[in-house]
Amino acid sequence: MGKGRLEAFSDGVIAIIITIMVLDLKTPQATGLAALAELLPVFLSYVLSFIYVGIYWNNHHHLLHTCKHVTGRILWANLHLLFWLSLIPFSTRWLGERRFTGVPVAAYGGVLLMSALAWLILQCAIIAANEGGESILQKAIGHDWKGKVSCVCYLAAILISPWVHWVSLGLYVIVALIWLSPDKRIEEITAAAAEPRS
Amino acid sequence: MGKGRLEAFSDGVIAIIITIMVLDLKTPQATGLAALAELLPVFLSYVLSFIYVGIYWNNHHHLLHTCKHVTGRILWANLHLLFWLSLIPFSTRWLGERRFTGVPVAAYGGVLLMSALAWLILQCAIIAANEGGESILQKAIGHDWKGKVSCVCYLAAILISPWVHWVSLGLYVIVALIWLSPDKRIEEITAAAAEPRS
Amino acid sequence: MGKGRLEAFSDGVIAIIITIMVLDLKTPQATGLAALAELLPVFLSYVLSFIYVGIYWNNHHHLLHTCKHVTGRILWANLHLLFWLSLIPFSTRWLGERRFTGVPVAAYGGVLLMSALAWLILQCAIIAANEGGESILQKAIGHDWKGKVSCVCYLAAILISPWVHWVSLGLYVIVALIWLSPDKRIEEITAAAAEPRS
Amino acid sequence: MGKGRLEAFSDGVIAIIITIMVLDLKTPQATGLAALAELLPVFLSYVLSFIYVGIYWNNHHHLLHTCKHVTGRILWANLHLLFWLSLIPFSTRWLGERRFTGVPVAAYGGVLLMSALAWLILQCAIIAANEGGESILQKAIGHDWKGKVSCVCYLAAILISPWVHWVSLGLYVIVALIWLSPDKRIEEITAAAAEPRS
Repeated sequence: MGKGRLEAFSDGVIAIIITIMVLDLKTPQATGLAALAELLPVFLSYVLSFIYVGIYWNNHHHLLHTCKHVTGRILWANLHLLFWLSLIPFSTRWLGERRFTGVPVAAYGGVLLMSALAWLILQCAIIAANEGGESILQKAIGHDWKGKVSCVCYLAAILISPWVHWVSLGLYVIVALIWLSPDKRIEEITAAAAEPRS
Repeated sequence: MGKGRLEAFSDGVIAIIITIMVLDLKTPQATGLAALAELLPVFLSYVLSFIYVGIYWNNHHHLLHTCKHVTGRILWANLHLLFWLSLIPFSTRWLGERRFTGVPVAAYGGVLLMSALAWLILQCAIIAANEGGESILQKAIGHDWKGKVSCVCYLAAILISPWVHWVSLGLYVIVALIWLSPDKRIEEITAAAAEPRS
Repeated sequence: MGKGRLEAFSDGVIAIIITIMVLDLKTPQATGLAALAELLPVFLSYVLSFIYVGIYWNNHHHLLHTCKHVTGRILWANLHLLFWLSLIPFSTRWLGERRFTGVPVAAYGGVLLMSALAWLILQCAIIAANEGGESILQKAIGHDWKGKVSCVCYLAAILISPWVHWVSLGLYVIVALIWLSPDKRIEEITAAAAEPRS
Repeated sequence: MGKGRLEAFSDGVIAIIITIMVLDLKTPQATGLAALAELLPVFLSYVLSFIYVGIYWNNHHHLLHTCKHVTGRILWANLHLLFWLSLIPFSTRWLGERRFTGVPVAAYGGVLLMSALAWLILQCAIIAANEGGESILQKAIGHDWKGKVSCVCYLAAILISPWVHWVSLGLYVIVALIWLSPDKRIEEITAAAAEPRS
């Protein structure tokens, strides 16, 4: 089974997810600069989600790079990940409409948490199908502290959202920044593995 | 005529079908946990359809893998399949809005039935263009009991939906589970056929 | 300049065009079988447009197959074609909403006519960049009676639509059928040209 | 890291951006030719944006052609560009709805200005990762007067839009025409660089 179509399909779905979010940017009724102020919450939630989906696309790219054998389990683990990612436009719209308050804050974190768990499942499926603990991917992710910290942050953000929703939002931003910062170690290992002589 | 563009186009259409369904997840007016309860029917119908479209994408992948010659007939049989699949977002939205009752239950089954028939037509077109009964695909599908059972289930579900629509919904879930369960035999045959020495 | 990206981009745009039309299939307010009757005009206009876009995708596939050199002019002629095709979802929605009457009938023909003209421009650009009258494409299309007849039919349909709109609709169906019928001659010539020894 | 997926993903996003704009072409309530007159502002803003997105796709094609090494920085510079391009459907819809007046005229220019700046950042990232000043791209763009003139025009259009918004709109059209006119020099240099013997 070819890896090409898996990549192409995932790219297609992620490209649509990242783009249809902009359909929820409604044209404001107000005129003048007030119109732009009115848009701000929806715009900011769009920016945050664009970054999250961008991170997932970027990492998905790396993840499949290390994958040689595509099994039925990997295909379904990948679809499972795409399912949760496909809910991001919904949770983003809700977060913006309610101006970062109430249940949508927890719902946004819930979708991120489920996406992160789906990511871990996909990672395990790929490692299991590609030489287990000896695989390039296993070495590259090591103890995967980023993945674990993210899940803990999402869970904390969901639990505290009814009381201090600004802290929850801060946690979402912090996790995005953690993933955005370049991870030299992974790039080096995958680069080394890609070279024939190493 | 290249198989690559046929795959790429089908992937594109299926990726859009699977993703635009999420546009029908409207943000709820209720607040608190009642908001999530309100969403449940639409969400569940989305999950079911996501699984169905995922199964079709997955199987489409296998189907074209065995196809060497692409004829005009195969192109149109493929477009015919994509046409019925493209109606899934519509029937899913209707099913969720009407909370799994009335005509939408039958309509949902109707779209699934037509998709299944379009699938059979595509399968026949590929077998006919690729060495007939001797083809890899013919061996892999054998008597194709899954395809036949599915059609019977959809038909039964449509007919009984005015009286016991929960049974119809149960049938849709059962057919999805039948297809989700891994089919060792097919994977083995296609894997064997893919190896040069076998 | 690579042909691959031109094909991939066109496939993407055409896949989106063919799929977003289904977003205009609104869930009916009526219940029972009346609901399905209410949907019929929108559904039929969707079927017709799906076939038209399918024909364009299919022929685009053949057209680029014969194209070796991609110039800036071809890129823009292709974008020009995609522009008019992208208006098909709009004209389809309008045709269905107004139940095949009035200005939308002429507007639908207008979009088809502009698409057909854009197609001729693209064809000329490809022939000019690929050995002119000696090119495979030039031989394959010959005098291109299909293209000419289509344009005449669209023009006639637009002009008579204020008086006998059912005749206009009939012309749209007939042109679609002309293109759907397999064109042996073209397939043979392109197949012969694809073989190295011929 | 492969260039293929970067191209495929960008193509997907740009294809969606260029196509979803047509969803904002609402079917008019008026009948007769008045219906078409009513549509004109939205249609014209669609045409302008279609050309802009087409130019970006076309140039993106050339830009990545000269790029050999894809780094994390290039990936994010590319996503940053796609982010601003994804706002074009929003600013286009607003421009058309408000019939080319008021804040939307400035907002449209703002999105174009940010896209142009994102383009410059992407260009710098690619040059930096591909042999710096010696790179093909560096030679091809030279002093990049088009990029600089565009930014100045956008900025001027934004600043004067509260007083003479028709001049702003004229500037947007002029910049599009500058980019549409074929740039012989670039094609020659990239063509020369692509030939093995040169």
